Order: sequence, then structure tokens, then C-alpha cells
Amino acid sequence: MKAVIFVIDGLGDRPNSEGNTPLKEAKTPTMDRLAKEGINGLMNSVDIGIRPGSDTAHLALLGYDPKINYTGRGPFEASGVGLDVKPGDVAFRCNFSTVDENFIVQDRRAGRIEDTSELEKLIDGIEIDGVKIIFKESGGYRAALMLRGEGLSDKISDADPKKIGLKVKEIKPLDETPEAKKTAEIMNKLIKIVYDKLDKHPVNVERKEKGLFAANIILPRGVGEVPHIVPFEEKYGLRGACIAGTGLIKGIAKMVNLDVIEVEGATGDAFSNFDNKAKALIKAINDYDFVLVNVKGADEAGHDGHYDVKKEVIEKIDVMLEQVFKEIDRNEVYFVITGDHSTPIEEKDHSADPLPLILWGKSVRVDEVDKFDEYTAHKGGLCWIKGLHIMPILMDLMGLAKKYGA
Amino acid sequence: MKAVIFVIDGLGDRPNSEGNTPLKEAKTPTMDRLAKEGINGLMNSVDIGIRPGSDTAHLALLGYDPKINYTGRGPFEASGVGLDVKPGDVAFRCNFSTVDENFIVQDRRAGRIEDTSELEKLIDGIEIDGVKIIFKESGGYRAALMLRGEGLSDKISDADPKKIGLKVKEIKPLDETPEAKKTAEIMNKLIKIVYDKLDKHPVNVERKEKGLFAANIILPRGVGEVPHIVPFEEKYGLRGACIAGTGLIKGIAKMVNLDVIEVEGATGDAFSNFDNKAKALIKAINDYDFVLVNVKGADEAGHDGHYDVKKEVIEKIDVMLEQVFKEIDRNEVYFVITGDHSTPIEEKDHSADPLPLILWGKSVRVDEVDKFDEYTAHKGGLCWIKGLHIMPILMDLMGLAKKYGA
Repeated sequence: MKAVIFVIDGLGDRPNSEGNTPLKEAKTPTMDRLAKEGINGLMNSVDIGIRPGSDTAHLALLGYDPKINYTGRGPFEASGVGLDVKPGDVAFRCNFSTVDENFIVQDRRAGRIEDTSELEKLIDGIEIDGVKIIFKESGGYRAALMLRGEGLSDKISDADPKKIGLKVKEIKPLDETPEAKKTAEIMNKLIKIVYDKLDKHPVNVERKEKGLFAANIILPRGVGEVPHIVPFEEKYGLRGACIAGTGLIKGIAKMVNLDVIEVEGATGDAFSNFDNKAKALIKAINDYDFVLVNVKGADEAGHDGHYDVKKEVIEKIDVMLEQVFKEIDRNEVYFVITGDHSTPIEEKDHSADPLPLILWGKSVRVDEVDKFDEYTAHKGGLCWIKGLHIMPILMDLMGLAKKYGA
Repeated sequence: MKAVIFVIDGLGDRPNSEGNTPLKEAKTPTMDRLAKEGINGLMNSVDIGIRPGSDTAHLALLGYDPKINYTGRGPFEASGVGLDVKPGDVAFRCNFSTVDENFIVQDRRAGRIEDTSELEKLIDGIEIDGVKIIFKESGGYRAALMLRGEGLSDKISDADPKKIGLKVKEIKPLDETPEAKKTAEIMNKLIKIVYDKLDKHPVNVERKEKGLFAANIILPRGVGEVPHIVPFEEKYGLRGACIAGTGLIKGIAKMVNLDVIEVEGATGDAFSNFDNKAKALIKAINDYDFVLVNVKGADEAGHDGHYDVKKEVIEKIDVMLEQVFKEIDRNEVYFVITGDHSTPIEEKDHSADPLPLILWGKSVRVDEVDKFDEYTAHKGGLCWIKGLHIMPILMDLMGLAKKYGA
């Protein structure tokens, strides 16, 4: 037996003035058929009333308790932009920013500079006190930064003053350990070294001449130590893969050691190539025991407040599922369809409203639900579960769960 | 956005021989309308199968886990009778009792003495070894006692032998700490000092002459250290108030720093002035971001085993809600209606039977439930939740929940 968790990012919504949601209104004949053939319920990836990020949500959906495994945004961003994170590394999100000669922040995004690939090279590979700096720009002013070496700690304060006109903050240790002291010292040295290198770089000299903000400093934030995560295959005995368009989800997948399958044209928005994703999924089901799929357009539409776009994306995903299910054998594959969080049109951000969930496959207790939406799911046989329940339920159905007791 | 949690104390029940409950039979057009317009579910304030007190239940409804924040009845009683409790104080419930000269208990309630205000003055303000005694009678033979000072502990045994004919027990430290030893010593000294003062007081001399039991000792029990509770406004960023007729609920409210609104004629029984409470609630919704309301008559009727009275109280509360909802705008207020625990007629005490719950307000996923009772609620979109879920759900709907992750 094999298993797929198919995550429609930002799927859930709150009712509009007519009591409708994009999912409720969307024409989803395939999802509705799968709801009818499966067992249904509500699901909160982290917990009831908790508004999750996509990162904590996907960790939970994969059976990794974020309370234990989520150490902050830094490590997951670093993994997401493609850095090869290792347990013990200390990672940050970074902005290229602009400061004056007194380190007063002039612009937190360095005038939204578009190309920082030349500047990246100045920073990546620096060594300070035996600690290696690993640095990667991730599109424009954004970047990820990692420290690798002995005796580091993530118990340090931020440098980013978060406001224009304030001075870059000295990074301080947040506890009494020598590790925190050392890490804070390295980071303070790094920021000065980076300023010296960046400020006089031709890219910035040219920007200043044009009256643009120079990308002459980096402001790290969201510090976290890369967690010691039990690899997916070790935890479940399943060879697993991930299909996702966005860096953050790929980062989660790499963090738990799922193979990341790159799909051409899978951009993570409404124009993502769903057809290629469907083909990639069908192949992945053949090649692996487990596949995590994340399709992202509905979340973007939610963030943008575009009701009709969200509805259309869901309809496209339904067509994608129709294509996939032509190739799926109920006796061989368990298929879960759900979301990671709601992204209601009215909120334009994630919310804690629960997601509908379908569990489809052999020997599930088929219930009376015959429609996939936020209103019908609670009538199903799964009632209201959490993300951390999904993998144990799948493992049990697949006959792979360990008995607890005799 | 604002929020109200409206608690009908002791609301739930078990079916009588006809399969009815007071709530099911009561005519509650307003509650039924709100059920229809809202999302519904079952709710256990503490957990499934747990029979809560009103104190632990209300803590949970306010989002404070009683496992962490409930340190015993003493502190909550002390807060409830109006003592200004502070974290670190050690508090007790007390009875005025009657002992002979050998400290053998003659009566545990001092003949149900009605006025102990003169005796209170003898005890309140005593100092022993630098520790201040704070004491308040709370109607008749009942009182609350608090120790305030450095180096105290609640790890001590009870003095109350709980039976007539037994000697008052020596209070002993329950662990090896100097704090427990010191607190036990102070308490033993206090009980002797109090006996010496009380036994010869004119009130007791007169009682003995009349053949009544003298209130010549205090028997403390239910010891607990006043917990360090994060104030409600700090926890949620909401200015909150409480409307309640009974001391215990007011005590909880004060403990979490809700403003307690006093309502004329709100007595906490079936004859409570519901009209004044309704007016006070409407005003409180205008003045605050959050209001906790407790209406108490149904619980008393349950404790007394009076089915019809319980039904009538629920009908009165429905009229009260009708009045309140004339003034409430669905776009401005989230309104939760539920109970703290069931108080079944057949048990005459609290039970763990879950309560129906309505969540009413903007953008909730309205379900098909159109009646408020113990039988219909589970068909709603909230399935079966716990008290600790309510505040996170409200915070999320109000757009005030912090995102966990990215």
C-alpha cells in the first residue's frame, strides 16, 4: 500500500455575504466523488483555534509535532531556498538593507534591489573564529544566512531594528552560555565585515550614483538552530517524495528528508502547470511509497482577496485530480485531500478555521458525505481531527502501525 | 470586534424517563434562533468525562488551563469573598467551628452561627513571625484565610479532622522545605491564638449561656498558593469585564484581572434580577472588548433536584437574551452561549455530560442546527470542543490570533 497527502494550500474559507465559499461554489465533481467514496471530517493542522503558517502546518501533516520540531523561521527558510541545512547549524532570514555610515537604517529592503547575486558572493564563505558563513540570496533583497561550526547557539537577539531611522542593533546573547556569547560576537563581527565589503562594491557605488538605496548591509532575523529531525523514512519505513512549487514547502520536505521532485512550470501560483504536476504525481506514486503534494494557487488568491480566482484555482485542481485518479487503484493507494490552513478572502491571511478532509482508499468506513466543502465535512465519520492524526491513521490502514501493548 | 461568553451555570442535564431535559423542554425561541444563525457543538469545559467545579470550568472557558492555574479552592474562595489576593499568598477556606478545651470538635459549623463579623475582627490583622494574617468571614460560619509574607508554602496538611468527636489535627509540612515547616508552624500557632481570643469573646460567652455552640476555633482547609496568572488583558490584548452573581465566579474574574461589574438584584438564584443583568451586559459590551457573563439559577435548581424550576430559569434567561440581542450587531460582537458544566436533576450535583454551545457572529460557518439543547448540538459544525478552545477560536475570528510559523 502507498499513501498520498494532497494539500491544497490555503483551501478553507469563511462564508461571504451569501453564505458561500470558493470551495463550496466551485464545481468539483472529482473531489465530490472522492468525498462520497471516502470518509470525511474536519481537520486543523496544528490545533483548534491555532492559525498556522504553511511550515508548521506541513510539519504537522507529516506527523512531526511543530512544538518539538519547529525552531523558528530561519532554518526552514534556509532549507527552502536550497541551503543544505544540518542539525546544529544556526540559520536566519535576512534582508539586504541600506544604512548610513553610522549604521542608521535608511531602507529595510535596499530599495527593493532586484539582483543581489554579485553581492551574495562577497558574503558566502566568510569564516569568523572558525565558524563558516553560508549565505544565499533568494530573490531580490531577500536572503538566508547560516552559521556552521562548533559551539553555536540560537539564544541571541535580533540585529534588525525593524524601523527606518533606527540604528542596527547590537546582537546580544540571551542566556549565560559561552555558546550564546560566541554566536552573538560572530554575528556582530559579520555585520561589520559585510558592511565594509558591500558599501564599496561597484554594484552599490553605481546605485548611489543613480540615487538608489545601496544594498550595503544585511539584517538577519528569525534565528533558529536547525532541529534534529528524524528522517521520514526512518520514522515510517516509507520512501517518500514531495511535489511542491514553493521554496518553503520544499524546505520542509528537505528538512524531513523527502525527495523533492521538480516539476516544470509548477510555479506555486494560479498559473502553475497543474497538468505537469498531475503527471509528476502519477509517476511519483509509482516510484515511492509516500507522496506529499502541495498545490498553492488557492492560498495566493486568498492572500490577494480574489474570490473568483480562488474558486477557479480549486476547479483547476479538481481537473488535475480527475487526471490523477484515472491512474489510481483503490486497492493500492490511500489518498488524503485537505489543506494546510484556511486563507479566507475577508482576512487575506491564514486563519484557524478548520479544513475539510477526505480520506479515500481501501477499507475506510465510507460515510454519507458526498460533497467536499467547509460545511459538509463535519458530518463525516472522522469528525474533527488534527494534522498529527493523519500519518498514524494512514500507517494503521496500511498495516504498518506498531502495536502499543500486547 | 468584541466577544461575549455567556455561561448558563449548570445548564446541561440527563434525560428524565420521557427522554426530556429542562433545556430541551423549555421554550427558548431566542436561543433556538441564535443556534440557527450560528455554528454549534458540544463542549466540555475541562475535558471529556471530567466533572468540573464552577471554578476550574470558568478558568478553562477563559483560556486558562486549570491544570496549570488552579492551585486549590483556597485562593479562589479567598478571591471570591473579596480578599485582594496576590501571587505567593497562601490561602484557605475556613469554617468557624466549636471545640472543647481539649480541641475535640463538637460542631464543624459552630451551630451554623449567622453573624461572625465581630469575630472576624479578632483574627484579621494578626501577625506571626513576620507573616500577616488576612481573614474575612463570608456569611455565617464560612470564611477565607490568607497568609502573606516571605518564605511560605502550600505543602502543608489540613487541620480539619472533618468529623465531630475527633481532635483538631496538628498541621504538618508535606515536604522537607523550610517554607513548608515555617508555614505549618505559623498555622498551628494561629489556631491556638485564635482559640484563646475567640473562646472568651462576649459573642461566644453569650452563645454558651444560651446553650448554643460557640464559634471558638477556625478550621482551615483547601490550602493553595495564589497562582501567578497572566492578566486577561496582557494575555489577549482585550479589555475585559465580568458580570456574575456569585462570589466564586467573581473571584475567578478578579484572579485573571477582569473588571467585576456589580448588578443590583443579581443574586445568583432563580429570583435573580435578569432584567438588570441584561441592561448591565448591554452596557458592558459598549464599554469593554470582552465580557464574561455567568447566570446561576439553573445550577441551583439542578442541585435542588427541581426540574420545573430549572426549566423556568432557562426560559427566563431566554427572555433576558432576547432583550440583549435587540442591541447587538452581528458585525460587531461574537457571542458564545454555553454552560460551565451539567447539573443533572437526578444527580443534584455537577456532572461531566457535555454542554451545548452556540457560537454566533460574523463569518461563522452557519450549520443546520436550529435548536439549542443537549441532543441537537453535536450535529453542528463545531463537533465536540473543550473550554480551552473557545478563546483561541474567538481570537482567530476577531483577527487577533498570532500566526504560528510563516
